[in-house]
Amino acid sequence: MARNVAQKLLASHLVDGELTPGAEVGLRVDQTLTQDATGTMVMLELEAMGLDRIRTELSVQYVDHNLLQTDEKNPEDHLFLRSAAERFGLWFSQAGNGVSHPVHQAHFGRPGALLIGSDSHTCAAGALGMLAVGVGGLEIAMAMAGQPMYVTTPDVWGVELTGTLPEWVSAKDVVLEMLRRHGVSGGVGRIIEYHGEGLAQLSAMDRHVIANMGAELGATATVFPADDVARDYLAAVGREDDFERWEADAGASYDVTEQIDLSTLEPLIARPSSPGNVVTVAEAAGEEVFQVVVGSSANPGLRDFAVVAEILAGQQSHDQVSVDINPTSREVLADLITGGWLTSLVAAGARIHQSGCMGCIGMGQAPAAGRNSLRTMPRNFPGRSGTEEDAVWLCSPETAAAAALTGKITDPRTLAGSHGLTCPRPTMPERYAHLPSMLAAPLPPEEAAEVELVKGSNISSLPDFAPVEDHLDVPAILVMGDDVSTDEILPAGSRVLPFRSNIPKIAEFAFTRIDPDYPRNAQAAEGGHVVVAGRNYGQGSSREHAVIAPRYLGLKAVIAVGFARIHWQNLANFGILALEFDDPADLTRIGTNDQVVLDGVHEALRSGTSVTAQIGGREVGLHHRLSERQVQMVLAGGRIPLAAREV
Amino acid sequence: MARNVAQKLLASHLVDGELTPGAEVGLRVDQTLTQDATGTMVMLELEAMGLDRIRTELSVQYVDHNLLQTDEKNPEDHLFLRSAAERFGLWFSQAGNGVSHPVHQAHFGRPGALLIGSDSHTCAAGALGMLAVGVGGLEIAMAMAGQPMYVTTPDVWGVELTGTLPEWVSAKDVVLEMLRRHGVSGGVGRIIEYHGEGLAQLSAMDRHVIANMGAELGATATVFPADDVARDYLAAVGREDDFERWEADAGASYDVTEQIDLSTLEPLIARPSSPGNVVTVAEAAGEEVFQVVVGSSANPGLRDFAVVAEILAGQQSHDQVSVDINPTSREVLADLITGGWLTSLVAAGARIHQSGCMGCIGMGQAPAAGRNSLRTMPRNFPGRSGTEEDAVWLCSPETAAAAALTGKITDPRTLAGSHGLTCPRPTMPERYAHLPSMLAAPLPPEEAAEVELVKGSNISSLPDFAPVEDHLDVPAILVMGDDVSTDEILPAGSRVLPFRSNIPKIAEFAFTRIDPDYPRNAQAAEGGHVVVAGRNYGQGSSREHAVIAPRYLGLKAVIAVGFARIHWQNLANFGILALEFDDPADLTRIGTNDQVVLDGVHEALRSGTSVTAQIGGREVGLHHRLSERQVQMVLAGGRIPLAAREV
Repeated sequence: MARNVAQKLLASHLVDGELTPGAEVGLRVDQTLTQDATGTMVMLELEAMGLDRIRTELSVQYVDHNLLQTDEKNPEDHLFLRSAAERFGLWFSQAGNGVSHPVHQAHFGRPGALLIGSDSHTCAAGALGMLAVGVGGLEIAMAMAGQPMYVTTPDVWGVELTGTLPEWVSAKDVVLEMLRRHGVSGGVGRIIEYHGEGLAQLSAMDRHVIANMGAELGATATVFPADDVARDYLAAVGREDDFERWEADAGASYDVTEQIDLSTLEPLIARPSSPGNVVTVAEAAGEEVFQVVVGSSANPGLRDFAVVAEILAGQQSHDQVSVDINPTSREVLADLITGGWLTSLVAAGARIHQSGCMGCIGMGQAPAAGRNSLRTMPRNFPGRSGTEEDAVWLCSPETAAAAALTGKITDPRTLAGSHGLTCPRPTMPERYAHLPSMLAAPLPPEEAAEVELVKGSNISSLPDFAPVEDHLDVPAILVMGDDVSTDEILPAGSRVLPFRSNIPKIAEFAFTRIDPDYPRNAQAAEGGHVVVAGRNYGQGSSREHAVIAPRYLGLKAVIAVGFARIHWQNLANFGILALEFDDPADLTRIGTNDQVVLDGVHEALRSGTSVTAQIGGREVGLHHRLSERQVQMVLAGGRIPLAAREV
Repeated sequence: MARNVAQKLLASHLVDGELTPGAEVGLRVDQTLTQDATGTMVMLELEAMGLDRIRTELSVQYVDHNLLQTDEKNPEDHLFLRSAAERFGLWFSQAGNGVSHPVHQAHFGRPGALLIGSDSHTCAAGALGMLAVGVGGLEIAMAMAGQPMYVTTPDVWGVELTGTLPEWVSAKDVVLEMLRRHGVSGGVGRIIEYHGEGLAQLSAMDRHVIANMGAELGATATVFPADDVARDYLAAVGREDDFERWEADAGASYDVTEQIDLSTLEPLIARPSSPGNVVTVAEAAGEEVFQVVVGSSANPGLRDFAVVAEILAGQQSHDQVSVDINPTSREVLADLITGGWLTSLVAAGARIHQSGCMGCIGMGQAPAAGRNSLRTMPRNFPGRSGTEEDAVWLCSPETAAAAALTGKITDPRTLAGSHGLTCPRPTMPERYAHLPSMLAAPLPPEEAAEVELVKGSNISSLPDFAPVEDHLDVPAILVMGDDVSTDEILPAGSRVLPFRSNIPKIAEFAFTRIDPDYPRNAQAAEGGHVVVAGRNYGQGSSREHAVIAPRYLGLKAVIAVGFARIHWQNLANFGILALEFDDPADLTRIGTNDQVVLDGVHEALRSGTSVTAQIGGREVGLHHRLSERQVQMVLAGGRIPLAAREV
């Protein structure tokens, strides 16, 4: 049977289950990527598992998010990550080397490989014919420990590209067109596969732009074939030998199909405050602009900066506009110098920032409230810039440069008339800069074993969690209603997030939005406690800390009318019993601090789904929905201790 | 009589008084400089005075401090400052253009001119034969309104330089030698004037290094002659026509004398946590280093970066060290590109940051706690880096580069042996880069008059303060003891400082360290209130907000046993009566909320120094120490309304 690229990638990594859309399968993981904001917890999980050395083909720890260093927390995280990379056998990319996704593509991208990363834009690597998926931190830790990744088999959405891109229109406009057509959930449950004659004109870095923002469509992954363009790219980064051809068979079909005639596209822009609010630049033209930011994983190619430089060359940026340039990596910066482009940018009035994610994840570069900021970045959710009432727009480098020049949203096609400019076509070097200082290779095992983890005062090891007891006799210290979200269980925000590597500290915030006394009451109940809730408990963000923090404070079980899916999985992952009422009306009969008694828990979990409890002296029927694998986790105290045993 | 350069500069600007050391004199101000952290309040003061256009020869508003932009406050301050510069006729340097002091020297430095700036390192301009003094914000506003600057005539300290600097020793080591000899208060009440045959080898930017850190010696100013070296510098920045020769007369003498034989100097370094803790680098050699930061107004010259680049060229920085480079300005960055130096730095593994003060004033680049950070900056006070338990050292670019290479504190003279390096002697360009985008010229008056001040939500105009009433009958809502500091009256820190342009908001913090209810009680006392204190009231930092905030909340008078000098001046500046007990024992007889009645205040102020009060029903003798000028201020409601009348 003729297969498309996505199907080939899935099949070549299948280790468990069958590739039927909708069915869960286990896939072998070749490579992992972690960044600093998520990596510290992953490294603590490896430590807790007692892993000696990672079992993936290749894993890389990047430092690209927390670069501002307003106090000791960021630099101490960096030192910890460096020591952990050395200890466990990862590659390490220092602070300021650059954004993980393009650096990974340049140094480690390999057609046919499966990459998972604890960053939602990991999907960018699909540009090179890889299967690349963003996942949660524990998933990465498990993959490093040698376990497969489990996913629901996605549909494959074939997008055929025909025609030729007009002048002043580029890759960013292609993915903005997808968002214009389908919105921010158009790709959910799907792998997007681009194909067709229009592909040949898109360089590997153009494809990176499109694959990267597949995340904004909600897609599981985006896949491009590994064709001559991919080979040329690998040659330009000095790794032609890593090329392997991955193309769809003749006559391959797709579960869903779509066509884009590139010749019909025009410059597009996403209005505030969603990547799905796409309109033509012409429609938005004339709005005043106060900031232009060029950079991020959404437009990381040398070309994307060179285009801006060539538009601004010999001119002055508008004096009302702060033009902020975030070179993707030190290698891109080196090439910008060599090509003369950096000189043009500096002379035009640009601010050249260190390499990294910067304003894209709200690390500086916040705009004034209500003042338009045009960015070549992937996201413009409200407040993500750091400014609560922000007005952030997403666009191509061409459109960004036009606004930098005029101080207004400007269709770049009009620059020919207004400024006598021709469409920039910067010549890329035959070989991109290659800096040996970019990545530290893994230490040999014998040296690695000697490395001590360097923990600053804000980094503490994951606590040891004992398995749930066979007999529980503990108070229900919190009784809640329906739809409690993970934001109520454990808030995010700048007051709490800095403690993400410090469970004892972050636990002080657990449930405090519902009951400020919860942390104190929980610790006072020395034998542990349960909490009780209504429907849809744990809705919202997937954050694991909403399970780990109450667990740390002694939470043994949650008894609820119903659970939100991801939080329910997280409870099992960290060994907390998730029990449902047989009769939802029982919820109303439970009072705060009622004593909850559960007997013969282990046997009940192993042999069936029913559990009987005494709550406040009354008998209450409960049940669980755990799979066999999850029962094993809970009995082991969670997924990490289970893996530790296997390790 | 033969005069030295300092005496000539003072005499040529004298408009009031006589130049006898210790006597107060008024000096004509030619130029002013403000940066963004202090400039917003200065601009609000100009607005409050109703000034239409500044009366200095030249005033420049720089934006170099608050560049991180983690929320809307910084960018909104920048927009406000731009509008204020346009409105009042200042030059404006946008965020990211560079550090005020070296940019000012390059674009506006003029031998013989008097510059004051609301930044303590304003003294750097003394490198070019200017009299340059750092002062408080209101002083700058008054100068812009055309008033002279009043200072106590300083002694002149002549430092004769002889001999030739050895290899690997540079200007930073000269000023570190001064700090080694005299500590951080060695220059108090003095102008330091460098002279002698050793001067010829020090470029204007070398002299900038030495003059800049005169602030660390506590000196009023540092002065170099305007000689051939100054002329060569002005030619290199394209302003040879601005050169004027200012040299000491033959046989000129100094109030204090000193000699440094440059040939005897070796690389020096200031240990944590004071610029006065100077030892030789050889003594400190071997300590592990985790960060090296190159930049700031203390080592801002192209040479200072080129030296580091040439030491690192073709090598890798040590992988444990974060090498942070803060190019002084976009012009220095342009020259670093042209000279090939930036390429060397990037290839060696450096992080290239935007131009500005950055980590020097704790805006990012914080080090890990207790991990050594070597910086070419001027200050290492504890916690200034952003890390409470920091370990910051101050050194020359040569010493910084040596540590970047080895990961340890390293005497750069040993690099010849260990790395086969010769002492770097980078060739400076004949003409430095000149970017037209660096500075926006003042608008013509008719256009300026039309400009509206752009105030973000965090910027509010200075409140109108009415003059003190002739009859006061108000409660003493706070009774304090001795040595109350301005930190207790109005705290600093990251929670409070962002509101420095927002008096209503910052007033919520007034006196809260002493009495959390003060702001509420003050506002409840609708007719105003007084506070009562012991000796040395208002000691510590000079911050004006410690007067403005309570004033905003209705403070009419402070009755104390005694006042700290600067705070006492600030009280008069903002129209608050500072009264002292005739009998200090009266303090103990006053209770919180005792009613204070003062009658015939205006006449008492005009006619003498005695004031009689009824406090809690008892008669209490008080007096004031105001000069005639200060009585006028208080009767007008403060220095700003007084100036407004004259304007």
